Amino acid sequence: MILVPGPVELHPRVLKAISEQVISHRSEKFSELLMEIVNDLSWAIGAESEAKIALLTGSGTLAVESMVYSLVNPGDSVLALEFGEFGKRLRESLESRGANVFTIKAPPGRTPEAGEIETIAKKIKPKYIATVHVETSTGTMINNLKDISKLAEEFGAKLLLDAVSSLGLEELYMNKWSINAIASCSQKGLGAPPGLSFVALSEEAVKRVCETTGKPSYLDLCKNLKFLEKRETPFTPAVNLMYGLAEALKLLREEGIEERWRRTKRLSELLYNMTEDIGFSPLAEETNRAHAVVALVPPNGFSATEIVKALRKKEIYIASGMGDLKDRILRIGIMGYVNESHIEKLVKEMAEIVGRKKIE
Amino acid sequence: MILVPGPVELHPRVLKAISEQVISHRSEKFSELLMEIVNDLSWAIGAESEAKIALLTGSGTLAVESMVYSLVNPGDSVLALEFGEFGKRLRESLESRGANVFTIKAPPGRTPEAGEIETIAKKIKPKYIATVHVETSTGTMINNLKDISKLAEEFGAKLLLDAVSSLGLEELYMNKWSINAIASCSQKGLGAPPGLSFVALSEEAVKRVCETTGKPSYLDLCKNLKFLEKRETPFTPAVNLMYGLAEALKLLREEGIEERWRRTKRLSELLYNMTEDIGFSPLAEETNRAHAVVALVPPNGFSATEIVKALRKKEIYIASGMGDLKDRILRIGIMGYVNESHIEKLVKEMAEIVGRKKIE
Repeated sequence: MILVPGPVELHPRVLKAISEQVISHRSEKFSELLMEIVNDLSWAIGAESEAKIALLTGSGTLAVESMVYSLVNPGDSVLALEFGEFGKRLRESLESRGANVFTIKAPPGRTPEAGEIETIAKKIKPKYIATVHVETSTGTMINNLKDISKLAEEFGAKLLLDAVSSLGLEELYMNKWSINAIASCSQKGLGAPPGLSFVALSEEAVKRVCETTGKPSYLDLCKNLKFLEKRETPFTPAVNLMYGLAEALKLLREEGIEERWRRTKRLSELLYNMTEDIGFSPLAEETNRAHAVVALVPPNGFSATEIVKALRKKEIYIASGMGDLKDRILRIGIMGYVNESHIEKLVKEMAEIVGRKKIE
Repeated sequence: MILVPGPVELHPRVLKAISEQVISHRSEKFSELLMEIVNDLSWAIGAESEAKIALLTGSGTLAVESMVYSLVNPGDSVLALEFGEFGKRLRESLESRGANVFTIKAPPGRTPEAGEIETIAKKIKPKYIATVHVETSTGTMINNLKDISKLAEEFGAKLLLDAVSSLGLEELYMNKWSINAIASCSQKGLGAPPGLSFVALSEEAVKRVCETTGKPSYLDLCKNLKFLEKRETPFTPAVNLMYGLAEALKLLREEGIEERWRRTKRLSELLYNMTEDIGFSPLAEETNRAHAVVALVPPNGFSATEIVKALRKKEIYIASGMGDLKDRILRIGIMGYVNESHIEKLVKEMAEIVGRKKIE
């Protein structure tokens, strides 16, 4: 039973799809596959036909960096929100691009306050506000993305979003919430194999991507969109993984995206509640708890890594923390084909490990 | 029958391998898979255990750009050899990195002269000489790589090689020929699925990759090698494609790399000879003809695209030229599981199209 915060176990239909023979990426059949994926991704991010989607072969980091290098110019003023490892990486990516970065940090489990964001934005008038939606390293989520986006608009800033761990799992509306660009990937909420990622661009962002210069070709979304007009990708794509992503998106259509959001919320709340009963406490504040990734502090006297190891012996795979949090928290992904019985089984084993009363 | 210059049709064993369930990229099983691939790739590039290999999720362009951004600093003097589309891309990548690039160009079918390289290198004293090995766009190959490497050494320059279309198909010895870094990918000579690529680094290059700054994280080979020491990759890799690459490398071990070089040479020579008999002529000069990619000029009065289309109706897939050469040349990949009967079948159909005497 795999409950790490991505990659997820693949559905048999997805595994079957990826083992189809490779086709040429300059064929009509390929163009159809590409456009089917782009169309389904547009729907999944709440953009319908209005977003352009650049499909990339690479991890979520590639998508985030492509968004940064294609929209931000060296010297541009950017306000970065940082509340965990992936926020740090986003900030570092902006710095390596040469942007003029102002960072608001929040400790693990919290997110930057709206008031502070407003004060700083007023002062520095950033061109972009860049943030992670669900911080995979801490199970913490920006719960007022809509408000931050509105705030950004007031100051003429645009919102760049790392939705790597949230897409398909947490409420997200690209158009309604006026998000300028969203970067995400295949192997988490979408339930596809790892190795594909993408950047969804608003109409305004589409106008901007060709204005930045001095970026590596592989991160160049301008080039990608030019090829998209011809229904192609600029570089040889991972065709087999695209078969898998197309199938995973079909499964998402069948379940319904709002139903998947509800399922993720329901299961994470069940997990938060059940583990509280056996002495675990959520790392994130109640208002900022993610549903896609549940981060838990073990009861006193227990190290996270020893719990992870003990569960592994039962063939239950969850993750411990990252960096400084390595030994201090457990991280559980509510991703893939998870249901109530998985959560109950997991909590039962966790209860046994910490020696509390078994959950019936 | 697919005879494009990559990607290639996958062997059934490779297709079977990629449909295995995903495993966590932070598990022991994954580490074993990664090290098996690194070890086999070291062997395939003629480096045995001495090269460090950074495995990347992405196309050959990603590998080439990672090599450029991780070894070259802005302002570094680089001599770039350009004799086709991929040489142009390599030069553009060096330029976007901010290197001080001097380019020696050769027209399609030719490669820069050793004498000219020597004269220029003497004058500009480059830190690096960067070149493509087999130019996929023209079927042209640097036939004196060993000499260029020796020349580079004389002037204290290091050789950076794009071996995307040559690896596994053309003679190549990283150590014996003193190549500083080699970039290549999965879906051509290695016969694996598209989506993985890598950079092999000499001991000297390993020392250098952490000295460059201001590069995107996804292109950072320093970070990659640090994770390799822990037998991991820095970002979520395309695990299923890695299963496929490991299996494809097993197939290469079974055939033997020198035997694969010989097979490629034998089949390309057969193709050059048989097509000459029916009025086609090679684009490349005799001394610089690649074996991995055969580029042919059709007889007078025939356009390359119409021949490609006519063959497609017989379910034979080859490519036409790129850019300005679009309509002027045919490109045939001697990659994947090609044998004499494929070549004979192809030439027979080509002969029919151009209305010459059928090949018996």
